[in-house]
Amino acid sequence: MASKDVLAKFKAIVGEEDYWDQPADLALYSFDSSVENPVLPEVVVRPESTEEVAAICKLCYDNDIPLVTRGSGTNLAGSTIPVSGGCVLLLTKMNKILEINTDDMYAVVQAGAITLDIANAVKEAGLFYPPDPGSQKMSTIGGNVAENAGGLRGLKYGVTKDYLMGTKFCDMEGNIVIGGGKTVKLCTGFNLTGLMVQSEGQLGVMTEFILKLVPPPKAAKSMLVSFKDIIDAGNTVSGIIRGHVLPATMELMDNFTIKTVHEATGVELPTEAAALLLIEVDGHPAVVEEEYAIVQKVCAENNGEIKLANTAEEREALWEGRRKSLSSLARLRPTLVLEDATVPRTKIPDFLQALDDMRKKHNLEIGTFGHAGDGNLHPTILCDKRDEEEMKRVHACVADMFAAALKLDGTCSGEHGIGIAKQAFMVDEVGEGTINYMKAIKRGVDPKNLLNPHKQAI
Amino acid sequence: MASKDVLAKFKAIVGEEDYWDQPADLALYSFDSSVENPVLPEVVVRPESTEEVAAICKLCYDNDIPLVTRGSGTNLAGSTIPVSGGCVLLLTKMNKILEINTDDMYAVVQAGAITLDIANAVKEAGLFYPPDPGSQKMSTIGGNVAENAGGLRGLKYGVTKDYLMGTKFCDMEGNIVIGGGKTVKLCTGFNLTGLMVQSEGQLGVMTEFILKLVPPPKAAKSMLVSFKDIIDAGNTVSGIIRGHVLPATMELMDNFTIKTVHEATGVELPTEAAALLLIEVDGHPAVVEEEYAIVQKVCAENNGEIKLANTAEEREALWEGRRKSLSSLARLRPTLVLEDATVPRTKIPDFLQALDDMRKKHNLEIGTFGHAGDGNLHPTILCDKRDEEEMKRVHACVADMFAAALKLDGTCSGEHGIGIAKQAFMVDEVGEGTINYMKAIKRGVDPKNLLNPHKQAI
Repeated sequence: MASKDVLAKFKAIVGEEDYWDQPADLALYSFDSSVENPVLPEVVVRPESTEEVAAICKLCYDNDIPLVTRGSGTNLAGSTIPVSGGCVLLLTKMNKILEINTDDMYAVVQAGAITLDIANAVKEAGLFYPPDPGSQKMSTIGGNVAENAGGLRGLKYGVTKDYLMGTKFCDMEGNIVIGGGKTVKLCTGFNLTGLMVQSEGQLGVMTEFILKLVPPPKAAKSMLVSFKDIIDAGNTVSGIIRGHVLPATMELMDNFTIKTVHEATGVELPTEAAALLLIEVDGHPAVVEEEYAIVQKVCAENNGEIKLANTAEEREALWEGRRKSLSSLARLRPTLVLEDATVPRTKIPDFLQALDDMRKKHNLEIGTFGHAGDGNLHPTILCDKRDEEEMKRVHACVADMFAAALKLDGTCSGEHGIGIAKQAFMVDEVGEGTINYMKAIKRGVDPKNLLNPHKQAI
Repeated sequence: MASKDVLAKFKAIVGEEDYWDQPADLALYSFDSSVENPVLPEVVVRPESTEEVAAICKLCYDNDIPLVTRGSGTNLAGSTIPVSGGCVLLLTKMNKILEINTDDMYAVVQAGAITLDIANAVKEAGLFYPPDPGSQKMSTIGGNVAENAGGLRGLKYGVTKDYLMGTKFCDMEGNIVIGGGKTVKLCTGFNLTGLMVQSEGQLGVMTEFILKLVPPPKAAKSMLVSFKDIIDAGNTVSGIIRGHVLPATMELMDNFTIKTVHEATGVELPTEAAALLLIEVDGHPAVVEEEYAIVQKVCAENNGEIKLANTAEEREALWEGRRKSLSSLARLRPTLVLEDATVPRTKIPDFLQALDDMRKKHNLEIGTFGHAGDGNLHPTILCDKRDEEEMKRVHACVADMFAAALKLDGTCSGEHGIGIAKQAFMVDEVGEGTINYMKAIKRGVDPKNLLNPHKQAI
């Protein structure tokens, strides 16, 4: 427990308005968007500069206080739950877009900036920041980097790590550390930018980023493709990529999800389809036309029926359904276990088959949707946390999902991270030697194990 | 010094044919392609499996023997010189391309495979591996990863780190560690793949990689553009990128380099030009035509005269000159100090001006060529290592170059790495706090400091 003296020092760093130590306030930072159990921190602070962050780090280090960095708390793996108590450091006040350089095509942003705000500001400047995690309206770029967030455009444009050119962060002793920079090529010492991505707050407190920007695509074409058999949809995904077309997005919804979304929202969808794909090709107009022709051919070969969006409104209507998938499924039952097991994209048909077998074996309702184009599906189990017997089946089913993904050369987590939710499965994927190596890195930079401890099985 | 007993154990691991301990053999591994002084190792071994590598690591660890991993030794920063003696581990026998998966678009290769062999095998399979360091005919992919090698296509296609999906490596205790995998999205624990890139052999011995492949461009157009003023060439580079065109390559040669190449090789070049740019745009034929039109417009605005390559032979002839730049310059004087200071691309004109000032101030011959499109120039000082007075001026000039690059928001090293050659300059770029953080990582995973010690100022 932090002494009154130490709590006063926290308050002195950030000021009264950005300091909380009362249970009602602390409770707000005890949970995140996962289904993991809440844990109260001792103190919450909201700094507004890298220097204040450094001072908080040093104060925690000197007094052996665990430190959990938090943005908007939208993560789905329990990564921001302060399982050892201590201090929650909120970055939401450091939300500025410091620079958008259109000639050298980068942006400098603070860690608490909202992802969509960055994307919109970049768009206004005539450029494009592609990563678009489902949470982009609320999530902070700091959280995106810490979890290596993906999104709908991963297939063609990559994920957060592919756009991170540099970062500034504080270590536990309050030193300010620099990774990367503003040049396209840079080889100075270890690639700290690469290391910090996906580290879930365990290696430092990141306060600033340099993001790579690209020219925006000049044209796009969106379509909805219905299938009578979900395996045909999976084969369509593989066939399109085999045709050397990388769509900007290629999203899948199974019949259960289609029906649920339609019933919950009234969005016009082919409720009789076994599955649908939402496909968007983008780029130069000539490329878009040629890629569309290949997509048409592959869909026809796999009995897919295309409905093309001819106007911006029609396009918007198509995507509305996909965006509402998660919230629609969430209305059906009290608890929703959203997974993100991922496989190489050609293994999608096998993985879909395996999911169907699991649904029957464990007698569970599973809605499957997600980023089929990059092999990253979100099978979502509908259940009730209070029903112990059902939750046993849920846990067994989740274990089966990960085992199936690994058997297909895949991973336990495509874009949500490990946090505390998937710790038990990580060793199966990477092995003991790898976890020990990760622990050695952690020990080296955080010998007191104060930075978001007990996450990622590290 | 390793005892006879320990030497026998090395021999037992790899066998007689892949073991050397005699001075005449050891001397071959005492230097690399930099101008740094050679240092003899005690023993050289050439394993042929990850298991043998692991056994060598453990033997070194148990007996406190420094371990330097080496591919073809083409690095330019002294990164593979065994400055503390010990064991040189040669990866040249582990040179297999294990898998090229055209549907999921990745390749699995051993660390000792030659870069160009990989690129050619991938091309034959109908795909494209873009990174093309100047040394690609000789360099190993392991060296490319360890140094995060760049090349001519960095501007549009990125560098080695942008194509590394996964790696297998051994730590000093002989454990096998896995980073990344075969899926486009992957978030399982720390991003070890990102950490290992650019680590110059200091964090483990990498034996295998999973490389991302992309569909090849369908068309390309190459041209040579002559300028009467080198600053006009620099402004052309910025203008093209400002026009949202990212050429596959955009290479610069100054008058000194042009003349030297012409005289040394007879390659047809405009010897009266102050500078020339070699530009190639690629992609869909329609895109190529549109981008070419923009390039024409920007060149005209900056008084550049375009000579287009109309056939494959003409294209080849254009590139021949650029490829021969380094070897042509090397013929003029006994010693060649090749730098790779890099700036954001719009700062190229300022950097060229600064280089011209330095040439005069230090009274040195400097040929400048390189990857202007990504801000990565290779100012090359011609000198004689035996002339102490001249070398003093060379060192002062190099210090000025790095200071100028940093002042322009750039870096000491765009693609060659730090090694021992640039250790003195690294702190100016990243600061003490960053170097201490890198040291903490190193200490964590290699507490005895045996893995390629005393490199990168870490």
